[in-house]
Amino acid sequence: MALNTDRFLEDLHCLRSFGASGVGKGVIRPAFSAVDIAARRWLASRMAEADLDVHFDPIGNLFGVNGPKSLLIGSHSDSQPEGGWLDGALGVVAGLEIARAAKEAGGPPISVVNFQDEEGRFGILTGSDVWTGKISLAEADTLTDNDGLALGAVRARMSGRARDFLPHDMFHGFIEMHIEQGPGMDAAGTQIGVVSDIVGIREVRIRILGRQNHAGTTPMALRQDAFQALSEFNQRINARFAALATAATVWTLGYADISPNASSVVPGCAVFSLQWRDGDATRLDKMEQTVCEVAGEIARDLQVKVELGDIGGIAPAAMDARLKAALRDSAEALAPGKWLDLPSGALHDAANVAQVIPSAMLFVPSIGGISHAFDEDTKEADLVKGLEVLNRAALSL
Amino acid sequence: MALNTDRFLEDLHCLRSFGASGVGKGVIRPAFSAVDIAARRWLASRMAEADLDVHFDPIGNLFGVNGPKSLLIGSHSDSQPEGGWLDGALGVVAGLEIARAAKEAGGPPISVVNFQDEEGRFGILTGSDVWTGKISLAEADTLTDNDGLALGAVRARMSGRARDFLPHDMFHGFIEMHIEQGPGMDAAGTQIGVVSDIVGIREVRIRILGRQNHAGTTPMALRQDAFQALSEFNQRINARFAALATAATVWTLGYADISPNASSVVPGCAVFSLQWRDGDATRLDKMEQTVCEVAGEIARDLQVKVELGDIGGIAPAAMDARLKAALRDSAEALAPGKWLDLPSGALHDAANVAQVIPSAMLFVPSIGGISHAFDEDTKEADLVKGLEVLNRAALSL
Repeated sequence: MALNTDRFLEDLHCLRSFGASGVGKGVIRPAFSAVDIAARRWLASRMAEADLDVHFDPIGNLFGVNGPKSLLIGSHSDSQPEGGWLDGALGVVAGLEIARAAKEAGGPPISVVNFQDEEGRFGILTGSDVWTGKISLAEADTLTDNDGLALGAVRARMSGRARDFLPHDMFHGFIEMHIEQGPGMDAAGTQIGVVSDIVGIREVRIRILGRQNHAGTTPMALRQDAFQALSEFNQRINARFAALATAATVWTLGYADISPNASSVVPGCAVFSLQWRDGDATRLDKMEQTVCEVAGEIARDLQVKVELGDIGGIAPAAMDARLKAALRDSAEALAPGKWLDLPSGALHDAANVAQVIPSAMLFVPSIGGISHAFDEDTKEADLVKGLEVLNRAALSL
Repeated sequence: MALNTDRFLEDLHCLRSFGASGVGKGVIRPAFSAVDIAARRWLASRMAEADLDVHFDPIGNLFGVNGPKSLLIGSHSDSQPEGGWLDGALGVVAGLEIARAAKEAGGPPISVVNFQDEEGRFGILTGSDVWTGKISLAEADTLTDNDGLALGAVRARMSGRARDFLPHDMFHGFIEMHIEQGPGMDAAGTQIGVVSDIVGIREVRIRILGRQNHAGTTPMALRQDAFQALSEFNQRINARFAALATAATVWTLGYADISPNASSVVPGCAVFSLQWRDGDATRLDKMEQTVCEVAGEIARDLQVKVELGDIGGIAPAAMDARLKAALRDSAEALAPGKWLDLPSGALHDAANVAQVIPSAMLFVPSIGGISHAFDEDTKEADLVKGLEVLNRAALSL
C-alpha cells in the first residue's frame, strides 16, 4: 500500500486530541504528564498495528522498529506548557506513516522514533540527550522541573513497559521533519526547507551587584545602580554583537530580575540571562569573549560587581551530506522552485542524534512564523507536501 | 527643669525595644502592627506622665497637646519593613522631650505629634495625608497593603481610644527633626541641616507591548522585543533628563518585570516604574513632558506599543521663612560653622503639614548615608546637638 496522506492527517488530528487546549489547535502536553503518557501509549498501539516492534527505553523514548538495520524517522510528541498541535508531533506521525507504508509495500526497512521531553521540562532535549550518551540516566534522574519535581520520580510512571536502550548502529540514518518555527519560509512562499545545519547555542546567567539605596536622597553621581548597569551592559552587547553577527546570528536577553524591585529604591542587584546562537562555533567563541570583555568594562565603568555564571552551550550540528542530497533531490522533484536550504535557529533532537548517526532535517512553513503558542499552524497542503518529499527521500536511501 | 538629654536618649532606646530586630539597631515596626500599636501606647503614657493631653485621632495619629495654641514638634514612629531605630522615631522622642522640658520649666506651650503610617504601608504619608485633608478618611480606608489588607480593617485595632481630628489652628507652627538619610552631611562633617524645601515627586508606571517569540527562529530585524524597548527608553531618558537636571535632581527606574521572563523567549511585555524628584515644579513638568515624548519615540522607532499609566505626584513644599530663620540662628549659636542649608530629597510629613501650618525641618547626619536599613545610625553627639538646636529654636518662637 502506498503512502496514505488521509491516514497521516487523521492520526495527526487524533494525536492533537491528547491535551487539546486553548484557542485554535493549541495543545498542553508536557513530558511525562498524564496526557503525554496516554498519547505515547496510543502511538505505540498504532505502531503495533503497523507490525512495527514497539520499544520504550528507560528514559521514555518510544521506537517502532522495523528489523535490525533501518532508516530512523521521527521527532517528539511532548509539547511546551502552551504549545501548538504540530511542533514535534508532525515529525512523529510522518515517521509513523512512512514506516507503515514502507512496511505495507514491502519497501526498505524504516523505523519511527518519538523522543521524550524534547521541550526541556526537565533538561534541554532530555530523551535524546540520554539516548545519545550526552548525559547519563543517573544525571537525568536528578533534573527537576519548575515545581521541583525530579525526573527520576516521574519516569517511574512509564517504567512498566521500559526495556533497554537500543544500540545506535541499528539505524543507518535519521531524518526529522519539523515546522520551521520562524517566518522565513512563509514569507518567501516556499514549501520545503532542507536544513543545512542546526545552530549552536551559548547561554550565561549574569549577576550585577550594586548598592541598594534611597531613591530620594542618593545623588545620581554617587549611585551604584544595578539596573542601570544591566541596561548599559545590554546596549554595549547590542553594538558589539552587531559587528560580529551575520543575518542569521541571534541573541536574546529574555530573563531579568531586579532587586528589591521597588519604585522608590535604587536597585542593588540585577540577575539576567544572555543567550546567543549561530551556526559557526568560531563566531560563538568570539561572542563569548565579547561578553567577558563587556562584563569587565561595566564593572570598571559603573563601579559595580559583575559575576558571570558558567557559560553553557550546545555545539552547532552539521547535517549529513548524503541525506541532505536525498532531501534536495526529492524536493526538486516534488516541489520544484518551492524549496530552499536554510539553517535551523531552533534546537532539535537531530542535533543530538547527529553526534551518533548521520542525520538530516526537513522543514515545512509556519504560518506567520508563530510557534510555541496555541495559534501555531501550517497549511494542510504544506504538511502533505512535506510528508511526500520525506517519503520519496527515505525510499531512495 | 531644663532639657534632659539623658532622658531623651533613654526614651529613644526604649522606643527601639518595640520591634527591635536584625543586625545593629534595626527595627521592624510597620504601621498598625502589634508592636507599632504597643509603641504608640507607651509613647502616650510618657506624654501623660509629662502632663500633656493625650489625643489619638481616627487615623491613629497621636498628639500630646499643651493648651489651645502651641508649637507642634514631631514625626512618626512606624518603620519600613526593614528599618533603622532613628528615622521618624528620633523626631517623635525629640518632640516629647522638648514639650516635656518646656512644660516642666513653665516655658512656651509646645505639643508633640506622632503621625501614623508615614512609611506608606497603605498609602504614601497616610496619617498626615488624612489630617491635612489631602485624602479623606473614607478614601484612606480603601487603601490596601501588599497583602491586600485594607486600612479600614486594621485601624479598628486602635479605634478604642480615638477622638476627633484636631483643628489645625491649634498649632502656630510645626517643626520635624529627622535623620538626613543621605550621605551629604556625614561626608561634609556637619552636625545640623536646615531644610530649605522638600522636593516634589512624580512617578509613572509604563507598559511596553512587543511580540513574544522564539529566541532561536526570530531574526533580529523582525523582533519587537519589549525588554530592548525598555532598555532603549532608559538610555534616552538618562540622556534627556541629564540635560534638564541640577545636581540635586534624581530619577530612578526601580521596578521592572518582563514577561514571560524566560531565557529562550523574546520578551513580549515589560512593565516598569519611572520616578523623578526635584524641588522645582517647573522642572518636574518639563521632565514629565520628556517622558511622554520619549514614550512616543520608542513606540515609533522600535515598533512596540507604549502605555503610560497615570502620572501621580507630590508637589515640592517650601519651608517657612520665620521657622527656618529660628533654626539657623540656633544652629549658628550652638554649632557654629557646623551646619548648612539643604533640600530634602526624601518625603516627610512636614511636606503635608506645610500645606496647612507654617512648617520647617531640621536634619542630623546619617552615618555613611545609610537609611531604610537595619544598620542606619547617627552619632550620639549629633543626636544630642540636634535636640539642643531644635529646643533653642522652639523656645525662641
